[in-house]
Amino acid sequence: MRIDGRQTNEQRPVELELHFTKHPEGSVLISVGDTKVICNATIEDRVPPFLRGKGKGWITAEYAMLPRATAERTIRESSKGKVTGRTMEIQRLIGRALRTVVDLKKMGEKTVWIDCDVIQADGGTRTAAITGAFTAMCLAFEKALTEERISEWPVKDYLAAISVGINASKQILLDLCYEEDSNADVDMNVVMTGSGALVEIQGTGEEAVFSRSELTAMLDVAEKGIKELISEQQHKLGKTSDRIQETKGVNTDDI
Amino acid sequence: MRIDGRQTNEQRPVELELHFTKHPEGSVLISVGDTKVICNATIEDRVPPFLRGKGKGWITAEYAMLPRATAERTIRESSKGKVTGRTMEIQRLIGRALRTVVDLKKMGEKTVWIDCDVIQADGGTRTAAITGAFTAMCLAFEKALTEERISEWPVKDYLAAISVGINASKQILLDLCYEEDSNADVDMNVVMTGSGALVEIQGTGEEAVFSRSELTAMLDVAEKGIKELISEQQHKLGKTSDRIQETKGVNTDDI
Amino acid sequence: MRIDGRQTNEQRPVELELHFTKHPEGSVLISVGDTKVICNATIEDRVPPFLRGKGKGWITAEYAMLPRATAERTIRESSKGKVTGRTMEIQRLIGRALRTVVDLKKMGEKTVWIDCDVIQADGGTRTAAITGAFTAMCLAFEKALTEERISEWPVKDYLAAISVGINASKQILLDLCYEEDSNADVDMNVVMTGSGALVEIQGTGEEAVFSRSELTAMLDVAEKGIKELISEQQHKLGKTSDRIQETKGVNTDDI
Amino acid sequence: MRIDGRQTNEQRPVELELHFTKHPEGSVLISVGDTKVICNATIEDRVPPFLRGKGKGWITAEYAMLPRATAERTIRESSKGKVTGRTMEIQRLIGRALRTVVDLKKMGEKTVWIDCDVIQADGGTRTAAITGAFTAMCLAFEKALTEERISEWPVKDYLAAISVGINASKQILLDLCYEEDSNADVDMNVVMTGSGALVEIQGTGEEAVFSRSELTAMLDVAEKGIKELISEQQHKLGKTSDRIQETKGVNTDDI
Amino acid sequence: MRIDGRQTNEQRPVELELHFTKHPEGSVLISVGDTKVICNATIEDRVPPFLRGKGKGWITAEYAMLPRATAERTIRESSKGKVTGRTMEIQRLIGRALRTVVDLKKMGEKTVWIDCDVIQADGGTRTAAITGAFTAMCLAFEKALTEERISEWPVKDYLAAISVGINASKQILLDLCYEEDSNADVDMNVVMTGSGALVEIQGTGEEAVFSRSELTAMLDVAEKGIKELISEQQHKLGKTSDRIQETKGVNTDDI
Amino acid sequence: MRIDGRQTNEQRPVELELHFTKHPEGSVLISVGDTKVICNATIEDRVPPFLRGKGKGWITAEYAMLPRATAERTIRESSKGKVTGRTMEIQRLIGRALRTVVDLKKMGEKTVWIDCDVIQADGGTRTAAITGAFTAMCLAFEKALTEERISEWPVKDYLAAISVGINASKQILLDLCYEEDSNADVDMNVVMTGSGALVEIQGTGEEAVFSRSELTAMLDVAEKGIKELISEQQHKLGKTSDRIQETKGVNTDDI
Repeated sequence: MRIDGRQTNEQRPVELELHFTKHPEGSVLISVGDTKVICNATIEDRVPPFLRGKGKGWITAEYAMLPRATAERTIRESSKGKVTGRTMEIQRLIGRALRTVVDLKKMGEKTVWIDCDVIQADGGTRTAAITGAFTAMCLAFEKALTEERISEWPVKDYLAAISVGINASKQILLDLCYEEDSNADVDMNVVMTGSGALVEIQGTGEEAVFSRSELTAMLDVAEKGIKELISEQQHKLGKTSDRIQETKGVNTDDI
Repeated sequence: MRIDGRQTNEQRPVELELHFTKHPEGSVLISVGDTKVICNATIEDRVPPFLRGKGKGWITAEYAMLPRATAERTIRESSKGKVTGRTMEIQRLIGRALRTVVDLKKMGEKTVWIDCDVIQADGGTRTAAITGAFTAMCLAFEKALTEERISEWPVKDYLAAISVGINASKQILLDLCYEEDSNADVDMNVVMTGSGALVEIQGTGEEAVFSRSELTAMLDVAEKGIKELISEQQHKLGKTSDRIQETKGVNTDDI
Repeated sequence: MRIDGRQTNEQRPVELELHFTKHPEGSVLISVGDTKVICNATIEDRVPPFLRGKGKGWITAEYAMLPRATAERTIRESSKGKVTGRTMEIQRLIGRALRTVVDLKKMGEKTVWIDCDVIQADGGTRTAAITGAFTAMCLAFEKALTEERISEWPVKDYLAAISVGINASKQILLDLCYEEDSNADVDMNVVMTGSGALVEIQGTGEEAVFSRSELTAMLDVAEKGIKELISEQQHKLGKTSDRIQETKGVNTDDI
Repeated sequence: MRIDGRQTNEQRPVELELHFTKHPEGSVLISVGDTKVICNATIEDRVPPFLRGKGKGWITAEYAMLPRATAERTIRESSKGKVTGRTMEIQRLIGRALRTVVDLKKMGEKTVWIDCDVIQADGGTRTAAITGAFTAMCLAFEKALTEERISEWPVKDYLAAISVGINASKQILLDLCYEEDSNADVDMNVVMTGSGALVEIQGTGEEAVFSRSELTAMLDVAEKGIKELISEQQHKLGKTSDRIQETKGVNTDDI
Repeated sequence: MRIDGRQTNEQRPVELELHFTKHPEGSVLISVGDTKVICNATIEDRVPPFLRGKGKGWITAEYAMLPRATAERTIRESSKGKVTGRTMEIQRLIGRALRTVVDLKKMGEKTVWIDCDVIQADGGTRTAAITGAFTAMCLAFEKALTEERISEWPVKDYLAAISVGINASKQILLDLCYEEDSNADVDMNVVMTGSGALVEIQGTGEEAVFSRSELTAMLDVAEKGIKELISEQQHKLGKTSDRIQETKGVNTDDI
Repeated sequence: MRIDGRQTNEQRPVELELHFTKHPEGSVLISVGDTKVICNATIEDRVPPFLRGKGKGWITAEYAMLPRATAERTIRESSKGKVTGRTMEIQRLIGRALRTVVDLKKMGEKTVWIDCDVIQADGGTRTAAITGAFTAMCLAFEKALTEERISEWPVKDYLAAISVGINASKQILLDLCYEEDSNADVDMNVVMTGSGALVEIQGTGEEAVFSRSELTAMLDVAEKGIKELISEQQHKLGKTSDRIQETKGVNTDDI
C-alpha cells in the first residue's frame, strides 16, 4: 500500500479545467492529485529565424514554478537572472514531445508558445505539463481553425505523459507523488501517443541502476496510465477530439 | 456609464479565496473583476544582512505576471534574464506598504516573503496585489502565532489599495479596468489603512496634468473604495480580523 | 530651526550652470545645496520601435550616481551588471514627467535622451534631476531649432520638482537634505508645471502614515518651492524661456 | 551499408589517450571516430553547501565545445553570457551517470569536477564524454589513493555510454556519426555499467515515434557497443582496472 | 603646426582641482585640455579575499565615461549589463600603475578604491585618469594619516602618465587630442615615476608598425611631458608632496 | 642557469602542428614548451555592422583556457556568465596585432574569426596564441584563395610574439615559463613583423619599475626570439610562405 493509499499501478485523480483564464488562445488547468499546472497556448504569426520561408510552423514551450508551488520557497528565476538546467530540460522536452504529434507544415509559418506554470507541486510536474499542454494546444488550434488563421487541422494524434519509478522495495510505482519521487531508486518519464507509440523515454537511476526486465515492467505500467489520461483528454475535448480521430483514424480502444 | 456598465464611483466585484494553494503559510487568490492575483506569504527564520542582530523583522515582496495574463503574450522575465523597471517599482511598493502596518519588532528576526503572481490581468494588478498580499500575510502570521513561531500579534491595522483616474471627459473613475486605464489622462494608486490614514499615493499624469481639486476628488472616491475592500478583508479573516481590531482598537465604522 | 539653519518652508540655494560640458546638445549642472547633478540632453534622429512611423517623438531618461557621490562608496551598477529598482523608478519618473510638458508631435520622429549623473548627493537627487533635466532639454531643443533639426518649438510649459516631508515632530519640511530625509516619517516628491498643475505626486510613509490634511499642507509648501525653481529656470533660459511663454501664454506671476 | 562503410551494428574506432595534459589529476583524450573530447578530472577538498558535514562526496561535470569543433562556427557560451539548455542537459547527465557507479561515502567530503571539452565533433559527443570522463575520474582517484587524499577505492563498477538510432529506412544504427544523427528518426543515448545494468536511457523521436519492439532492438545493439567500450577501458586502465574488479567482483565476460 | 596650434612636443594645459566633491577621502578634477576626469579615492578597512591575513593592502580602480562625455552618446555600461573590454583594460592599468609606487605593507589591510569618471573626453582619458588618480590617492592617504587610520606614509614616488603618437607624416606628437588620436598610425601610453623610471608602456600600431628608433623618440618626448605633470602634482599637493620627497629622497630637478 | 636549464636568452622548443582539427579553414596546435594552444581560423562572409559597405574585411579573436589548462582549476567563463578583463585584453591584442599585417581591403567584406583555446598553460599563452593564430590565419587564407572566396593574397608580412622579463636578480629572460613569470619584476610582451618592425609592446612593472636601458636590453632579446619563431612559421607554411614573401619582398635573412 502506498503512502496515499493507492495501488502500485494506480494513478492519482486527474482533472482538466478548460478555458481556465480568458486571454490565451488555449488555457487549461491540469490537476494530477495535488500537482496543479496552468497550461496556456499562444499562437503567434511568425516563426523563429531558422524556419523563415520554409512554409512550416514551430512549437516551443516555457515552464516555471511559482516560488511557493513547493514546500520550501524556491528563488524566482527572474530574480536569479537565469533559468536553471532543470527548467531548460523540461522546456525542451515539452516542445519536442508536442512537435512529434503535429504536422508542422499544416500550421503554416506560425509559432505555438506553450506556457506551463506550476502553481502547486506534488511530483510529476513535467508529465502533467505535457498532458495539459497538449490539451491547451488543441484548444488553441480549434480557435485558430474557427477564425481561419489556419486552414487545416494539424494534430495527428493524442499525447500524454506519466512518471513511473522503482522504490527501495523494488516495487514498480505509477505516477509518483513528491515523497515517493524523492525516495525512488529509479525514476522514468514516458511520453506516448494515442496510438501507443513511444515519443520519449527518460529513465534515470540516481545513485542506483536498473535491469532490462525492470524497464519492461515500468513501460507496461506507464502504458496503462497514459491510456487513462488520453481517455480523459478525449472526454473533455469533445468535437476537437473528433478532429484528431479523423486525422489519424485512431480509436483509443485499439491502443 | 462606463464600458462595463459601472457607476463612476463603483468598484468591480471583489473576491478573496483563502488557503488557495496548500504549501504557503498564507495563500490567497484575489479577484477584482477579471484581475486575478495569487498572493502567497512565506515566513523565513532570518532577516537580510542589514537587519541582523537588530531584533526586528522584514517584509519584502516579489511580483510577476504569467506570460498570458495579458491579451498579448509578454516575454517571461526569467527568459530575458532581468526584471523590468515596472516590476521593480511594484515590488518595492508592495513591501513598503505592508511594512507600514506591521510592528516589525513584534515579528522578531524573521522575513515575510510575499509572492504576488498575476494569472489574469485586467487593470489594477498592483492594487489588487496589495489588498491580497495583506490578507495572505495575516493568514501567515495567524499560523505562526498558533505554532508559536512568533509570540505576539504584529499587525497594527488593515491595509488595502485601489486605483482611481480621470478620463478624457474629466470624469473621476474608481477602480479602472485595463481599457479605462489605457485611455486615462491621470492614473493614481492609493494605499490606505483601516483607520483611513494614507500610506502611499502615486498620482501620474501621462502626457496630461491635474489640478489640486481633481486630486481631492480622486482621494474622496478612493477612500470609499478602500473602505469596501477592508470590509471584505474583515469578513473573510474572521478571528484573525479580531486580532487586528484588538491591536489597534479599530472599528471600521469609524474610518 | 533645521539642522542647516533653514526655515521649515525654505529651500536650499539653487544654481543652474548652463553649457556645463561641451559635447551634449544641452548640458546643465544643477546644484541644490550640496546636491549636484549633471544633466545632459541628446537628440537622436530616430524613435524606439513602438513609435516608428507614428510621426511623434519620445523622451527617455537615464540616472546614475558616481560611486562616491555618497558618504559611503556605492557599488557601480555597471560592475553589478544590473540596474537597481531605485534607479529604474527614478529613470521612469524623469522621462514621464518631461513628456507631460512636451508636444511630442512637434518633435517629429526624434528621441531626447536625458542623462542625469549625480556627482554629489545630499538628498533630493531625483527632484534636482527633473529640474535640471528640463533645463537641459530646453537648451537642446533651442539648438535643434536653430539648426533646423526641428521646425516648431515643442515645449508647452515649465517643469520643476521638489521634495517635501514630515519629520518626527510633525513639522512639514521643504526640500529635505540627506539627514532630514533619512529621519523623515513621510517623504513626498512633487512635480509641477509652470501653470501650477500637478504632473506627479509620490507620497510615501516609510513605517508611518499621513492624513489628508497633512497631504494638503505638504502640497502648499511644495508649490511655493516649485514657483521659485521655475523663476530661476526663466531667469537662466533667457530667450529660450520666451519660447515657452509664447507657446503657453504663461506668466509665472499667475502660477 | 552506412555512409562511412560500417555495418549497422558496428561502432567507430575508439581510442583513449591517458594523461593527455599535465595539470589535471586525471586527463584523457577520447576519440570515437572523428569525435574528440578532452576529459579532465579535478579533485577538490570540499563539497557544495547542501552536502557539508554529511560525510560524503560529490561529482559534477561541465561540458563545452570549442567554437570550431563544429562544421559551422558556434558562438562561445562565455561570449553569450549564458549556457544553453543543451549544454546544461549534457552536464547534468554526465554528473548523474558518474555518481551512480561511485560510493560517495568512500570519497569523503571531496568534489570531483569533470571537464569535458569537445575539440572536434562528429556526433555522439555526450556519450563519448561519459566514457572518457569515467576513465579520467578513475585516473584521478588512483592518484588520490596513492597520495592518501582518499583512503578507500570508491568506484564500484565501469561506466560507458553510446548512441543508437533508427534511420528513415527503419534500420537500427549503432554509434551515429553527425550526418546519420541529423537524419535519424529516433535517437537514443544509453549509459550502462560493466555489469550490464542500465544507468540512464534517453530515447527521443524528433518528429517521429518508435514502438516497444524497436526500443528492445536498440537496447540490444547498444549493449554490444558498451561491452566493447568497457573492454577498452579495462585494457587502458591496467592496475586501476583491477581495483574496480576487486570492488565489485565483476568479470566483464559475464556482462 | 598641430590642429590646436601646439608644437609637436607641447602638451595641453593641465589643471588639478583638489577636493572637488565633499564625500570622498580624496577627490580631484583633472583637466588636460578639454579632457576632464573626476578622480575619487576611497579607503576601505578590508582587503579582497586573496589578501586576507597577509598584512598588506590593495589598490584597485574603476573607470567610466558619462554617456555624453563623447561627441556621440555612448550607451551606459550599466544599461548594457556589462563592462566593455576597453574599460576593463583601463581599470586594470590604473590599479597596476598605482600599486607600483605604493608600499602596500605600510597601508595595512586596507583597500584604496579609485573611481575615475570622465565627464568630458577629448583624447588621453586613461593617462589623465592615472595622473589624477595618483593625486586623489595622495589626498586620501594624507587624510588617513591625520585620522590615524594608517600609521606610516606609504607612497614611495610620484606617478603620472601621458600619451604620445606618430601621425601619418611621421611626426612624433605629445599628448594627442581626440582628433589626432583617431588619425594616428601609432599610439603609445607611458606611465613613469617621479624618478624617471618606467612603470608601464603600451605601444600599439593600429594597422601600422613602428621602428625601434621611433620608439626611442616617443619615449624622449613622453618623459618631458611627465616631468611637467609631476611638477604640477608637487605644486598642488603642498605638504603631502613633502611626505613623498622624504620617503624617496626625490628631487624632481633630478628626474 | 634557469629553472628548466635554459640560457637567459634561450626560448623553449616551439612546435607548430598544422591542420590539427578537421573543421576549421585553418587549424594549428602551437606548443611552446608546455604551453599548448589550439588556434583555429574561420572565414565568414560578412563584416561587423560598422564596416558594412566599406569594401574591407575585419579580423577578430577570442581566447579562452580550458579549466584545467592551469595547475589549479579555473572557473569556466561561461559558468560565471562573463568574460574576465584579462581575457578581453588578450582578445583585443590578438585581433589588433593580426590586422596590422593584413591588407583588409584585399580580403573583401569578410571576417576572420580566430579562436585561441589554451589546453595546457605554462606561461606565455598570449604570445603563443598570436604566433599560432597568424599561422592558422595564413592556412585559412590559402584555402580561401584556392576556393576563390578571396581573389588576392592579403597577408603583407609575418607576425610573431614573445615574452621577455626581468627577474629579481636583474637578469633579462626570454620566453618566461609560468614560474618565472610569477616571480618576474617586469614582464613585457613584444609583437613584431618578419621585417623586424614593432607591432605592439606592452611592458609592465608589477610592483616594480624599469629603466630605459633595461627596456632596450629586453627588446634586443625579444627580437632574437621572434626571428626564430618566424623562421619556424616559414618552414611549416611552405608555399603559403612564398605568397607572403612575394607580397612583401621579404627575406628573413634581412630581418
